Formats: sequence, structure tokens, C-alpha cells
Amino acid sequence: MTSRPDTPLLDTVDTPADLRKLEPKQLRQLADELRAEMISTVGSTGGHLGSGLGVVELTTAIHYVFNTPEDRLIWDVGHQAYPHKILTGRRDRIRTLRQGGGLSGFTKRSESEYDPFGAAHSSTSISAGLGFAVANKLAGTPGKAIAVIGDGAMSAGMAYEAMNNAEQAGNRLVVILNDNDMSIAPPVGGLSAYLARMVSSSEYLGLRSLASKVARKFSRRVHTSLEKAEEFTRGMVTGGTLFEELGFYYVGPIDGHNLDHLIPVLENVRDSDQGPILIHVVTQKGKGYAPAEESADKYHGVAKFDVVSGKQDKGPGGGPPAYQNVFGETLAKLANDDPLICAITAAMPSGTGVDKFAQAHPTKAFDVGIAEQHGVTFAAGLAAQGMRPFCAIYSTFLQRAFDQVVHDVAIQNLPVRFAIDRAGLVGADGATHAGSFDITYLATLPNFVIMAAADEAELVHMTYTAAMHDTGPIAFRYPRGNGTGVALPETPELLKIGKGRIVRDGSKIALLSLGTRLAESLKAADQLEAKGLSTTVADLRFAKPLDHEMIERLMRTHEVIVTVEEGAIGGLGAHVLTLASDKGLTDAGLKIRTLRLPDIFQDHDTPDRQYDEAGLNADNIVDTVLKALRHNSAGVEEARA
Amino acid sequence: MTSRPDTPLLDTVDTPADLRKLEPKQLRQLADELRAEMISTVGSTGGHLGSGLGVVELTTAIHYVFNTPEDRLIWDVGHQAYPHKILTGRRDRIRTLRQGGGLSGFTKRSESEYDPFGAAHSSTSISAGLGFAVANKLAGTPGKAIAVIGDGAMSAGMAYEAMNNAEQAGNRLVVILNDNDMSIAPPVGGLSAYLARMVSSSEYLGLRSLASKVARKFSRRVHTSLEKAEEFTRGMVTGGTLFEELGFYYVGPIDGHNLDHLIPVLENVRDSDQGPILIHVVTQKGKGYAPAEESADKYHGVAKFDVVSGKQDKGPGGGPPAYQNVFGETLAKLANDDPLICAITAAMPSGTGVDKFAQAHPTKAFDVGIAEQHGVTFAAGLAAQGMRPFCAIYSTFLQRAFDQVVHDVAIQNLPVRFAIDRAGLVGADGATHAGSFDITYLATLPNFVIMAAADEAELVHMTYTAAMHDTGPIAFRYPRGNGTGVALPETPELLKIGKGRIVRDGSKIALLSLGTRLAESLKAADQLEAKGLSTTVADLRFAKPLDHEMIERLMRTHEVIVTVEEGAIGGLGAHVLTLASDKGLTDAGLKIRTLRLPDIFQDHDTPDRQYDEAGLNADNIVDTVLKALRHNSAGVEEARA
Repeated sequence: MTSRPDTPLLDTVDTPADLRKLEPKQLRQLADELRAEMISTVGSTGGHLGSGLGVVELTTAIHYVFNTPEDRLIWDVGHQAYPHKILTGRRDRIRTLRQGGGLSGFTKRSESEYDPFGAAHSSTSISAGLGFAVANKLAGTPGKAIAVIGDGAMSAGMAYEAMNNAEQAGNRLVVILNDNDMSIAPPVGGLSAYLARMVSSSEYLGLRSLASKVARKFSRRVHTSLEKAEEFTRGMVTGGTLFEELGFYYVGPIDGHNLDHLIPVLENVRDSDQGPILIHVVTQKGKGYAPAEESADKYHGVAKFDVVSGKQDKGPGGGPPAYQNVFGETLAKLANDDPLICAITAAMPSGTGVDKFAQAHPTKAFDVGIAEQHGVTFAAGLAAQGMRPFCAIYSTFLQRAFDQVVHDVAIQNLPVRFAIDRAGLVGADGATHAGSFDITYLATLPNFVIMAAADEAELVHMTYTAAMHDTGPIAFRYPRGNGTGVALPETPELLKIGKGRIVRDGSKIALLSLGTRLAESLKAADQLEAKGLSTTVADLRFAKPLDHEMIERLMRTHEVIVTVEEGAIGGLGAHVLTLASDKGLTDAGLKIRTLRLPDIFQDHDTPDRQYDEAGLNADNIVDTVLKALRHNSAGVEEARA
Repeated sequence: MTSRPDTPLLDTVDTPADLRKLEPKQLRQLADELRAEMISTVGSTGGHLGSGLGVVELTTAIHYVFNTPEDRLIWDVGHQAYPHKILTGRRDRIRTLRQGGGLSGFTKRSESEYDPFGAAHSSTSISAGLGFAVANKLAGTPGKAIAVIGDGAMSAGMAYEAMNNAEQAGNRLVVILNDNDMSIAPPVGGLSAYLARMVSSSEYLGLRSLASKVARKFSRRVHTSLEKAEEFTRGMVTGGTLFEELGFYYVGPIDGHNLDHLIPVLENVRDSDQGPILIHVVTQKGKGYAPAEESADKYHGVAKFDVVSGKQDKGPGGGPPAYQNVFGETLAKLANDDPLICAITAAMPSGTGVDKFAQAHPTKAFDVGIAEQHGVTFAAGLAAQGMRPFCAIYSTFLQRAFDQVVHDVAIQNLPVRFAIDRAGLVGADGATHAGSFDITYLATLPNFVIMAAADEAELVHMTYTAAMHDTGPIAFRYPRGNGTGVALPETPELLKIGKGRIVRDGSKIALLSLGTRLAESLKAADQLEAKGLSTTVADLRFAKPLDHEMIERLMRTHEVIVTVEEGAIGGLGAHVLTLASDKGLTDAGLKIRTLRLPDIFQDHDTPDRQYDEAGLNADNIVDTVLKALRHNSAGVEEARA
């Protein structure tokens, strides 16, 4: 770690009210200090670096010009909001970012009145901003809404839906399109090409031309054909027709690092009685930090790093591979012999391992942008035409495409394969990124097969099993992070659909594990054996269809049954209980307990502490068994002997 | 009913291959006969009328020009596909539309090879078409994909996501924008205004100008500034810049009822080696049937009607009110005294009853278009700024906004109210519209309160209770159709969160009902009493939080517990079982059964037959109880004495 930067001006600013006391000419220095503080902070905490660096000037300018928090500033995704946090009363806690009990890596309502709407998933800001704007308009109270949204986030349909509805907000809504030609991976699609053409075909507007353009724009709407022609001609120079057709006043593109341009434009927009307005700002991700500028992708999310060298602290190397890479590499291998395999990612090629697949099979890999809805139905179309598509989407983001999963995949019983990464708790990313609900929301659907990998070797088998499953939809889930270190199989095994495996044989206690809590279940079994309690451990492998035969047998032959899953209520445990009650297995008594994620949104923390809070560690399993054993037939727990 | 129309030419056409044998000059007559057949059919079956009438010529032209089924024709939503069904081998069954065992009211893969992709929810066609196109491109096999999508469906973000990705399909993808300025209700938003401007500012292109325009369009892309200026100028006349910016070649607008225009354009598009192409076709919903033309909205979905008079067979009047209207009118009344109440619908103002609210409070009602994602997060923004927003969305369509429900509402614990209409089975609309999963996918979320109304009086109470619930998200579900006929309360009652009610007291059997199956539960109780089995019936009212106290008490005092819900696995039954196992109530024996929707997608049929298939009628409840009673401690059912 290097020493903290010298920040004399920033030291005088605790909130935007302090910022607004500065002279405009001081803002450049303030921005420089803010940038230095941001680099130093993320060097010590890790987190999202490039995005925040790209909006240092924008953050400064917005808080300088607008009346936050009464004017509602909404950062789309929120991972670029570290400079915003520093300027809004949170500098003293900024070095707790992403740590247990510390600041969130995203915006969060409970943290500050300057965070009017939390985020973490992309493309929600315009909709939320519209809500704020309309509420104020209805109430006749002051306050605009400013949504800052990246060009990548604009690829999501939700942003388009919001823009399509924005006109009703009038001048109370300002959308700032932060165009850095980069979301997490290089951007895709027609909109991105459109933005690139707009930027490349125009010079950034200088102060004088901007002032006159802004004044002209807001004088009145252009309606006649002749004026429309003129507008199109201007549109060609300054871009904007697409947004204007959707009802926005368009301003831009302007240099998002030039405060002399930003401030007057924002002031004009603030004072305009016309709207909604979209300001197209061009920024550079990682701006002002050479290692990040040179490699914006790598510095999207970073580990702690040395500020001078830019070297990231990746911890000891040579450990087990990340689950995502095991998936991507397995799929790439399978596709060598199977021309029907293809893969879809929604703007997460490296996060999902689809990049590994794409390297080997570039024509078979599709990055659809932040467009999960489209991605899933696109996969359904591919499957309907005989391909074997794998949709590799994080558990939490698959929620974006739930109806497409139901309506286009499950109802039609199409063999789309869902590779569900980040299933379960996710540590520092917190509640917004936790993959808590996929077992529940998928297992309730007819026709679905759902697997969960207990380790990376199982993931290899499941990837292969999914590829071979042509009769309907199939999903397999696996966690964030690295595998357990087991050897990877030379040849993948074709798993029998709906069949689990007994990992350890016992007679009194049966632990039914699904997914990576298997290791803790085995640890728990050791502890139970040490207490003289013979324990069976089953890896169910399938949440649906359940291994009815095996589960019923274990229920009939064991005294206590405990299910263990990294998912919320309504998933594995619920399905096992339903099986038991359907078959009348509870009628004569069945000591059964279901361990699952708790009914709260767990805050970010280390994975270990999150598992403790969730009650999903070996000790919790043992406790659950012991309590069940002490529970007598009157339904009350007996005193510890 | 009137007699069937005379259709000599149509009688010679069983499939598109027959159609293609006709001379172009015969197509006008064929279309006229097809229209007459369509009117006659829907007169006898009920169903979607206006949409199909609007695409008679388009359907004829597409099948005439393209090589269906190898060329994949995908009708967005699918409710306009009746003429398509008549032309693709299903005329003999067309009068079974929407009846049990008969043809679906939408496209359906299992019905015909001419239905390559089923639909019913909106805005999926471009994504699916892109899947077909890319699969064929990869395989090097022939076949284009033609997606026909309405202007209303274009308001959904999913369509935009697909367009943003369409460029990769090249000339294999053709999108036909069927612009009738009308989805179900009048369209909303910037895109709609844009299309209207395009159409109003241009004359429809005649044959000669079209041919030259189409030829010019496909010669090459325009890239230089000068050519771009020219393109914009043309764009001003013919529209299209928005689509062209997203990567499409745009053709139009053209008259969708003029076969002399349609056929040559489609032929040019078919033979083009450029693409993707978007053809903007202007049609009139209800075209060719005066009662429908004059009132396109009313003839979107119709009951059986008299062809000559247009009078719909609405059945006997004066019955109980529809649930949707009870909701809309209750909310309107509550808003008289509460300026914070507002309502959001996603293109379903009359279907959800929001129209009733809008009449009384026009500034507080928001129709966001087919944009559930935006609608929910917009509501979250409104709630964050202190409003009391009600999102009135059908259960099946709320799936479209699941991530917004999780990420923007539940995680932030914002008091958005969800009025979930069409919860449970929906009769003739079938599996795609069934509201089967909402209890499961909402009850798994922390912070949520979930109610289900047993009758329309309960719906009044729940609407009021939701309005008063400011501490977090709350949902209430109710079915399609009319209420049970109970008196509506003068004053709504504030329900206690998480408390059920005992509707009937007994001692041996306890039926735990959620929602409108309460009537069947009471019937079952009568039958059980007649057999000497004293039966308690509880209306749980809340799926979350459960009435722990009452449920535990009933479990401890009754011999058999049966839960009854109109929802799939993972919902109420699963939560009750989880409660029981968490508390150890199964340890010493608990005869508990959960009646729920079966693990299949149920086809369209009458509601009664659907309930029979689902096993949710009084007889099924009685059977379940009797079987449970006969189930002995060895876990096998004893012989019927």
C-alpha cells in the first residue's frame, strides 16, 4: 500500500453543500484530488475502479450544479458511485467499501439520503428517476431527477421502455448518457454502433457552440417538415435523432472530463423549462490512472492493488480453477465434437467463462449485451431450430428473463441449457448479486430439470449431461469463486436424470445436500459420527426431478433427515417436504429439517461470515440434527442431558 | 348464428402450397373469402377478432411469397394468427378455437409445423426469429425467419433488445412491423408517437416508388456524411431512421391491405441479399367488418357474436362484478381521500380495472405500455418518493418484471402494491396466460406480504389493507372472471397482516384454503361432515407471512391437514410444510397434504374441466382427506373398508 494522497481542497468538502461554496475555477483541483482519493481507496479495498474514475468530473459537476439531495441523483448500476460517496458525507468510511459492516460497493438507500435509489443490476435508473420526477410533479414539490446511465446499460430493454415513457416527466427528468464505449466487456449491438457513429462523426461541442445549441434546443419543439429537415441535418452533426424520436431533447456529445463544458451545460439543463433532456457525455473508463486507462476491462472490478505499479493482489496463485472457467473450457471441448453446441452470454463473457468458449468457437458464441430477455428467447429460437444452446447467466440476472424462461422455454419444452453461475451467496457483492432464488423459481416450472454441482468435477459432468439432454429445458447451478480442488475428469460422465448419489453411508442421520454445501455436510457427518451418530450423506445432484426412490428410502430408514441447500425457501427443502407429504411419510412421524438461506436479504460480507449468518455451516448442520434428536413426541425440545 | 360464407377459392386451399398455385390476381378474392371465414368462425367461437381481420392480406401475401414452413413465420403474441391457421391445414378444426381439445387461440408448436414458435405473451418474435435465422446461417441450410410484430408490442424492451442484436442475422431475418396504431388499448409512449408521425408525414408508397426505393435501399449501406444527409432526408419522407440506426434496412410505410403493394415488396425482400430488413406495414384492426372497424378496442377479444348485427353474446347480465372492476372501483374510491394513491398498468387498462380508476383520477393513472419491467421500477421510484403506487399486472405478466420486483422493490423494501389479476387458471387462454407461479416466486422473497382474496368482498379489504401498508411491498392476488356474488362492504376492513380467519369450526379435519378455492373447501367440508368428519375450514388470507399461530394450533388439534391453493409447487403448501418441519410438528406424526396446481402446463379448456384436471374441486379435497385417513402408520394406504 502507498501513502494517502494530499487532498487539501477535498478535505474541506464533506457534503455537496460544501462543494457548492467553491469557485468554478477550483473544481479542476477538486476533481484531481477526488480522483487520487478514489485510486488510493480502491487500491486498499479492491472494488470497481475504472467506472468511478471515468465519472470524477461528472460527479463533481452534478453535485455542484444540482441541488442534491432534493434533486434526486440516480447512478445506474451504482458501481461508479465511489466518488459520489466520497463527496456525500461518506469519505470517513470509504475505506470500508465492500467489507462486512462497511459501505456497499453500490448505491444503497439505507446508507445516505444522497442515494435515493439503490442499484447494482443495470438499466433501472431512468425508470426510477421517472418515478421520482412524476411524484414531485404530482405533489407540486420541487426536485428534478438525474439518472446517469452508461452506454452498455442502454442495451437493456428496460432502459428503452423507460425512455419510451419519459415524456410525461417534462423538465423534471434529466438523463445523462455516460458513453465510455464500454460496459464490462466491449459493447454489442446496433445502439452501440449508433453511438460510436455519433461520436466519431462530430467534434465535441465547445462552450460557445454548446450554449447556442442548448438555447436553440429548448426554445421549442420542431414540428414542421422544413424544420424537421433542419433538425435532421443538425442531428447528423450532433447525433440524437434516436433519442429525440423517443421524446427527449438531446444535447451532445460533450467531453465528460472537461468541467468548463460540463458545468454550463448542466446549468442550462437545470434551468430549462423544457424536457426531458438527454445529455450525451463521452468519458474514458479508468481516466487519469494509467494502468486502468490502458486496460479498462481488467480494471472494471479489481482486487486490492499497488497504486504505483497497478499490480493487483490476486492472492496465492495455483489454486483450484474458478467454476466459470471450468464451465467455459468444458463447453469448448464438448463443442469440438458437437457442431450444435453454442453459447449465449448477456454482457458477461469473462464472468461466465463464455470467453473461453468463444476463443475456440467464435461463430458459436453470442454476447447479446445486457439483454437477458432477448438472450433467453434467442436461445429458445436456436433450440427450436435444432441447436444446443447454453445460456450462461448469473442466477440473479436470470431473474431478468423469468418470463422468457417460463413462456418461451418451459411451456414449449425446448431444450435450452441454463448454466447458472453465482448461485448462492456471493460475498462482497452483497444482496443484489446473491443467487438465492433460482432453485425456487425454476423448480416450480413443469418440464424443467435442475441440477446443482457439488464441486468442479460435478460441473464437468453436468455440463456434458445438459448438452446431451435434448428433450426439454435443463439448468445447472454452481457458485461464485474457485472449485474445491478435486481432480477434473478426463471424460465427463453422463448423469442419470433425477438420480442422486450416496456419498457416505450411515444409518441414523441422513443429510440430503444439493450443491457445494456437500463439503460442509461431510464435515458435519464427521462431527456426528464422533458423537456416535451414524450419518448418511447424499448428494442429490437434482433439485428436479427429485430422486424419489432414494429420498423415500432414506426417510424410511433414518431417524433424522436434514436437507441442505444454498437457496431460499420454496426450493429443495420445500420439494422434499412436498414429496414426503404427498407420500404420507410424515403421517407416522418424520423428523425432517430443511436448512436454507434465511428469509432476509443478507448484506455483503466475507463468504464465511455470510454462511454463518445463513446457518449453513457444518456446525449449524450438527446443531440442527442434535436439536431434532432432542425434540420429543410432545413437540418440545428436551433439555440438554 | 348465421350460415357459413361461400368460399369457393378458399375451399381449394388447404396449405400454402395450394395458395402458391394461384395467380396473383386471384389473391384479392382469396383474401375476401378468408376474411369472411374468419368473421364467421369467431362469431361462433369467440376469441380475438380485430387483430386477425387486420392481417388477412398480410397473411395471404406472406404465405404466397415466402416458402413456409421452411421459412419460419413467427406471429408476435399469436392472437392474430387465425387466418394463418385457416391457410395452414387447420381450417377443418378452426371452429374448435379456444375450446377444450381444440385449437389454441395462439400459435402453438404442437399444432402445426407452420407454427415454429408458440406465443401469447407479447414481443418475443424478433428474438425467436433471430434464433431461427442464426441457426440456419450456422448450419448453412436455407430458410429465413419472418417476425410479424405489432406497434404495441414494439413498446416492450424485449423487442428493442432483439432489434439491437438483429444485425448478425443478415438477410435471413425479416421483421414486419404491423402498425395499426393500436395494441389492446390505445398505444402509449414516444415510439408510438414516432410511428404516427412517420405515417402521417408520408404518403403510402405506391408500386413504382416502392420498387425503386427498395432497389435503392438494398444496393449498399450508406456511410459517408453526404449520403447520410441524403438518407436522413429520405428518412424524413419515409421514416425509418430509428430502425436504421439499430441496424435495419427500413421499407415503408406501405398499405397492408393492398396486395398489389405487399406482394412485390415481399418478393424484393425475399430475394434481397441484404438485411435484416424491417417492413413497416400500416393496417387497420378489424378491417372489413364494420362493427369491428368502428370499435377496434371492443373487438380485440370478443365473445360469440352475431355476424350481421355484431351483437356479442355476453351471457345473462346482472351477475356478480368482475374482480378487476371491484379492484378498480375500490381503488378509485380510496383515492378520493388519499392523494398518494396512484395506479400503473402495462397496456391493460380495462383488463386490470385501472380504467375505472383512471376515469376518476386521470393524473394518477399510468399506462406504461407493454413494459412491465419499467412499470415496476417506475412504481418503486414513486414509492421511494412517498406515493402509494398500485401495480396492476396479471400474474403471468408480472413474470416479465421479476427481477425488478426482487431488485428494486423487495431488496429496498419499498411499499409498492401489486394487484395481481388472473391469478390461477384462466380457461380458454390456456397455459401461457395461467397465473400459476406468483405465490411461489413472490413468497420466496424476503420482505414481501402476499394475500389472496377468497371473494370480491375480501378483495375490497385487501385493496384497502394494501393501501395502508407503508412498510414494505405487498401483493394481493385474485382470479380471472366474476366474483362469487357476496355483498360488497360499505366500509373496507383493515386486515391484520399475517392473520387468517376460521370460516368454519370443526375438530378432526382442517382445510387451509388460500384464495377462491375457499368455496370448494366449504363444499368439501359439507361432504366430510356428512360422513361424520368434523371439519374446520380456514381462509389463510396470507401466504406470507403465514398465520403461524393459527396453523400450528390447527396442526396440533386436528388429525388431517389439507392446504388448498390455486398455485404451483413451492407456494402455500410448501410454506406450510416448511413451518411444520421447522417447528418439529411432523416429528411425532402429522397427516398433511398439499393440494396445488399439477406439475404440467394445463391446456386451454373450460375452467371447470381445468379444475378437475388440477384436482382442486371439492370432490378432490374430500378424496384427499379420506385417503389420508386410510393411510396407516406403516405408510401404506389401507383398503377401503
